[in-house]
Amino acid sequence: MNGRLIVFEGVEGCGKTSQIQLCQEWLQYLGISVVVTREPGGTALGLDLRRLLLKAENKTIFNTTELLLYAADRAQHVEEELKPNLEKGNIILCDRYTDSTIAYQGYGRGLDINLINVLNLIATSGLESDITLWLDVDIEVGLSRKRSSGDIADRIELEAIAFHRRVQQGYAQLQASQDKIVRIDASLNKEAVQRMIQTTLSDRLKAWGYV
Amino acid sequence: MNGRLIVFEGVEGCGKTSQIQLCQEWLQYLGISVVVTREPGGTALGLDLRRLLLKAENKTIFNTTELLLYAADRAQHVEEELKPNLEKGNIILCDRYTDSTIAYQGYGRGLDINLINVLNLIATSGLESDITLWLDVDIEVGLSRKRSSGDIADRIELEAIAFHRRVQQGYAQLQASQDKIVRIDASLNKEAVQRMIQTTLSDRLKAWGYV
Ligand SMILES: Nc1ncnc2c1ncn2[C@@H]1O[C@H](COP(=O)(O)OP(=O)(O)O)[C@@H](O)[C@H]1O
Ligand SMILES: Nc1ncnc2c1ncn2[C@@H]1O[C@H](COP(=O)(O)OP(=O)(O)O)[C@@H](O)[C@H]1O
Ligand SMILES: [Mg+2]
Ligand SMILES: [Mg+2]
Repeated sequence: MNGRLIVFEGVEGCGKTSQIQLCQEWLQYLGISVVVTREPGGTALGLDLRRLLLKAENKTIFNTTELLLYAADRAQHVEEELKPNLEKGNIILCDRYTDSTIAYQGYGRGLDINLINVLNLIATSGLESDITLWLDVDIEVGLSRKRSSGDIADRIELEAIAFHRRVQQGYAQLQASQDKIVRIDASLNKEAVQRMIQTTLSDRLKAWGYV
Repeated sequence: MNGRLIVFEGVEGCGKTSQIQLCQEWLQYLGISVVVTREPGGTALGLDLRRLLLKAENKTIFNTTELLLYAADRAQHVEEELKPNLEKGNIILCDRYTDSTIAYQGYGRGLDINLINVLNLIATSGLESDITLWLDVDIEVGLSRKRSSGDIADRIELEAIAFHRRVQQGYAQLQASQDKIVRIDASLNKEAVQRMIQTTLSDRLKAWGYV
């Protein structure tokens, strides 16, 4: 049997990491072989690239360079991690994938979305998620979950708010145009969010022949 | 006035580095502002990427990953080095550019040439050389120039020969299909090769308004 790729998407603090962990425990409890991974940085090369981008942060890394480096990270991750696990029949829970690039670099930073689509296609060689769970939460809620205090007053934070708002709109538009992106109300408590995810995935696991 | 991009291409040992240096001295003697650069590795980021590729050489770097990393190096080089120098009106002498990727990765290693063309276009944002000098020499001659001894007996070297032969055929096909790629007979001695290059470039320098 072929494996399946389940992607978790959404703004900072929407709960991806928390929900992936709960999901992993649930799938393990059901006796299903599950692998957790992430983008960017899901491979050794990806971590090196990340360090390289951080190291270079004082110099100018041009937009196209950055998109190509993220695409290289994705290509390596697809070949090294995703495809082999899918071939083994595993369920993969992946923290961010192609839609993050569209939402953050495309909608958020205004880079060319056609270019991003081409690079996503090259980097994945067409490998798409089987289902994408968009954990939708107000960006203020997400950001304040990430912060110790809920204060969002200063100018830089307000700029960040405008950026994250565009990212959020990006996710909303992607979800509106693609059936396989399922919106999950991520404003509820962790347990309630996890219950909705399990309800959604239970149907798929049956359809895919896992249970 | 806008600058011009002169690219030097050809197999190992054809004389690119030597001829670029002689060309630089000649252009400086003519009072023309000239810049020498190279791909890959013409920027700080490019050098880091190169180290990263070498460091990773025991692990598998997948073909698409590698193409994307080289494209990132090229994108950074185009924006950081080529475009600013062209804007200043400088003549750029560049050791390898897009045709090297087609010849080595495409013809030599058999990677998808359409994919390489797309990535070249993305990385350069369409910036092409004004003239490309293909220094054509038999690969055996080029390789033996690079070696202390001219011995080409063992199996690995014979494999390398087959690879370099495909690269050479790639250059020949590129040259046959593009007027701006000028073939230079690089089997002669350095001074004779440089005279032919200067003859070719003298016409262009006039046409471009430099002399
Ligand atoms: N549904 C939730 N309600 C309240 N807090 C949450 C919820 N989900 C996650 N958190 C908390 O918010 C913070 C960010 O969650 P995390 O799972 O790391 O989000 P992400 O990975 O999407 O950035 C963590 O401190 C986490 O414990
Ligand atoms: N026309 C030539 N005839 C003989 N030797 C040459 C010639 N051009 C270059 N060489 C020598 O061959 C070696 C490789 O030349 P180089 O300019 O580094 O080539 P490339 O940069 O194309 O690999 C050097 O030792 C150089 O001095
Ligand atoms: Mg997280
Ligand atoms: Mg050289």
